[in-house]
Amino acid sequence: MFLYSENIYTPEGFQKGYLNIEHGKIKGIVQEVDEKEDVVDYTNGIIIPGFIDMHIHGWATGSFKFQGDKKALQNMSKGLVKVGVTSYLASTATNAVEKLKKQASDAREFMEEWIPEKGSQVLGIHLEGPFINKEYKGMQKEEYCIDPSIEITESLLESAGEGNVKLMTLAPELPNADRVITYLHEKGIQVSIGHSAAEFEDIARVKDLGVGGFTHTFSGMRGFHHRRLGVVGAAMYFEDMYAEFSKQTGMTVKPEAFAIVYRLKGPEKIILSTDCTGLAQVKEPFYHYIRKCTFSPYGEDSLKCVYDDGREEIINKYEYDNVKDVELSYLGSIQNVVKNVKASVSDIVKMTSENPAKYLGVDSYKGSIEAGKDADVIIIDDEWNLLDTYVKGVKQDIQ
Amino acid sequence: MFLYSENIYTPEGFQKGYLNIEHGKIKGIVQEVDEKEDVVDYTNGIIIPGFIDMHIHGWATGSFKFQGDKKALQNMSKGLVKVGVTSYLASTATNAVEKLKKQASDAREFMEEWIPEKGSQVLGIHLEGPFINKEYKGMQKEEYCIDPSIEITESLLESAGEGNVKLMTLAPELPNADRVITYLHEKGIQVSIGHSAAEFEDIARVKDLGVGGFTHTFSGMRGFHHRRLGVVGAAMYFEDMYAEFSKQTGMTVKPEAFAIVYRLKGPEKIILSTDCTGLAQVKEPFYHYIRKCTFSPYGEDSLKCVYDDGREEIINKYEYDNVKDVELSYLGSIQNVVKNVKASVSDIVKMTSENPAKYLGVDSYKGSIEAGKDADVIIIDDEWNLLDTYVKGVKQDIQ
Repeated sequence: MFLYSENIYTPEGFQKGYLNIEHGKIKGIVQEVDEKEDVVDYTNGIIIPGFIDMHIHGWATGSFKFQGDKKALQNMSKGLVKVGVTSYLASTATNAVEKLKKQASDAREFMEEWIPEKGSQVLGIHLEGPFINKEYKGMQKEEYCIDPSIEITESLLESAGEGNVKLMTLAPELPNADRVITYLHEKGIQVSIGHSAAEFEDIARVKDLGVGGFTHTFSGMRGFHHRRLGVVGAAMYFEDMYAEFSKQTGMTVKPEAFAIVYRLKGPEKIILSTDCTGLAQVKEPFYHYIRKCTFSPYGEDSLKCVYDDGREEIINKYEYDNVKDVELSYLGSIQNVVKNVKASVSDIVKMTSENPAKYLGVDSYKGSIEAGKDADVIIIDDEWNLLDTYVKGVKQDIQ
Repeated sequence: MFLYSENIYTPEGFQKGYLNIEHGKIKGIVQEVDEKEDVVDYTNGIIIPGFIDMHIHGWATGSFKFQGDKKALQNMSKGLVKVGVTSYLASTATNAVEKLKKQASDAREFMEEWIPEKGSQVLGIHLEGPFINKEYKGMQKEEYCIDPSIEITESLLESAGEGNVKLMTLAPELPNADRVITYLHEKGIQVSIGHSAAEFEDIARVKDLGVGGFTHTFSGMRGFHHRRLGVVGAAMYFEDMYAEFSKQTGMTVKPEAFAIVYRLKGPEKIILSTDCTGLAQVKEPFYHYIRKCTFSPYGEDSLKCVYDDGREEIINKYEYDNVKDVELSYLGSIQNVVKNVKASVSDIVKMTSENPAKYLGVDSYKGSIEAGKDADVIIIDDEWNLLDTYVKGVKQDIQ
């Protein structure tokens, strides 16, 4: 199969031509094709690598956080291709260890059974917690924030299956964190700092043990002060560490605050994610302090939204079109970033695909349009509207 | 007179040659001089513009803050050339308006009587307050923090004499601040934000009225938060505004915090000052919360220093060598900055001379080694030790 475009973004810059896809892999870009070949014409579209969301708990009709099972991942995968996400990490939230083990094993099963026709690919698992600091728990449950333990880490990795955990978010100031970081690093698992009261000096100490960056920078961490730089100061200061930013709604992090870090680190060291939870799938009333709204399950298949200002809405939670706007999507977040910092296509590709692939150690098969890599590509127009999504060469239903 | 060096720093870069000084002005750089000319050989020295300290209340044996008279300025001028400062703004602290008027008129007299043999030149006056916010008063006296008033401003300018006030630090969120900013801007007087609880949005609103930058960035201002960026966030965000940093001891502002702003703004938009007060000249016991020490006058001509850890010292406060280390000097601060951010000579010249001259609107005669400008130059070695100081071509006593 060939996808034709005048703008195919590759690590060597834009190329014009026919992107050749065979057996789910990128074969290369050619300038001519035989008449009888299968060609899709995206003359006016821009072909870029699909987005990799390394921090997502749920999306639209599925929630690995609230439902926490294979079905949830199935629904997430179906929905995510509609917003440009071709692969993601099934991300757990802080929970009882037994539940986390069950989730890890469900994710493993889903990964084993997955085929590209199912939608976005689960690349692996992101364990956000349970080794996080209660003091900066944010929307995580306090009772499940526990001290780092090699034994618990081992049991989670075992349930997940060899090589499936790609990332753990933890608080490096907790007792025993150094040992767990070292252990994860030896296994090739990336570590991000998040939900942490760490001091700048803690981070200076542990960064070379195998801590690569920061989870949802600014949120759930000690803030910046000029005499106590904290986690935020470390994210700003250490040029070799990545700052993950979850969806840029402008509510959680002001656009100007994002812009400051963007200027400091450049697109080379920023990773964009969503941290979406699949809010429509809540199991009990959930107050979202940023959105100023309480979401509650309502009957068999509906969701009730009661806003602080008194407005009420009831929607069918299994209809994608009904719930796709409950949270800002990956693509919607990108559209905001493009506007706020005047990011180029190249800048965005770095933050959405190249960087997360490198960060997670999957850049040998994901993250860019290069011969031999998985044919995970999306086609956008000049205004970042999605025209099509391909996962391992399979065209997805984006309607 | 000619000063010879292989490294004379000019806006066009380093030049080798004889710096020609005539009637207190720079005439140019020539490659040959007649044998009978007066030549000083600084072959191994680097000739750069003298430092301009736009925020200094006192230094060593003189304090315009604590003594507040002509004699204080005389002593400051004599001492400042020993640390590379060839011109400065006589800076007032928040005080009763009548006292400020008296200080302004004393500074005016000193400026009128001044000759280069007296040492560092008072370029004008920096009014730090009285229109500052009590909430962020720092070491300023609360009872004298008042709301902005055109009438008071007029009376201060009148006492100072036409054109002598070069800079005012104020809190733009206070009532009537917009009017005072506009008034000052029309008079060609620069305005810095300091001791301020302003919101980011306040600053976005007033910056184009005539506010150029920030006084002692990080200190005495609303801190940074990602949803409430405050004054610090504005200093980080607005690329066209200057950030003044007072002496970099590492105590008030951690070196890494300075480094973050340095990366954001570059040497082009940072101004280095000291905010020294001439602490040895206190009139009543003064607790310095950063130095953790109480300074008290002791007898006729001595100073008693009682540190929190119990140490006590008694020193003669009119002996330069005794008091020169009570506060870190301009040159000492520069030596720290050079180390912390690996600043080049060019970077330092921008932050110490070119930028303050531009900021204060005196760059037609100060701030760089160019034909026609005042011959305010210092000679340093490779390690930023001071070899000599010239003010308007007059060699100073730097011992």
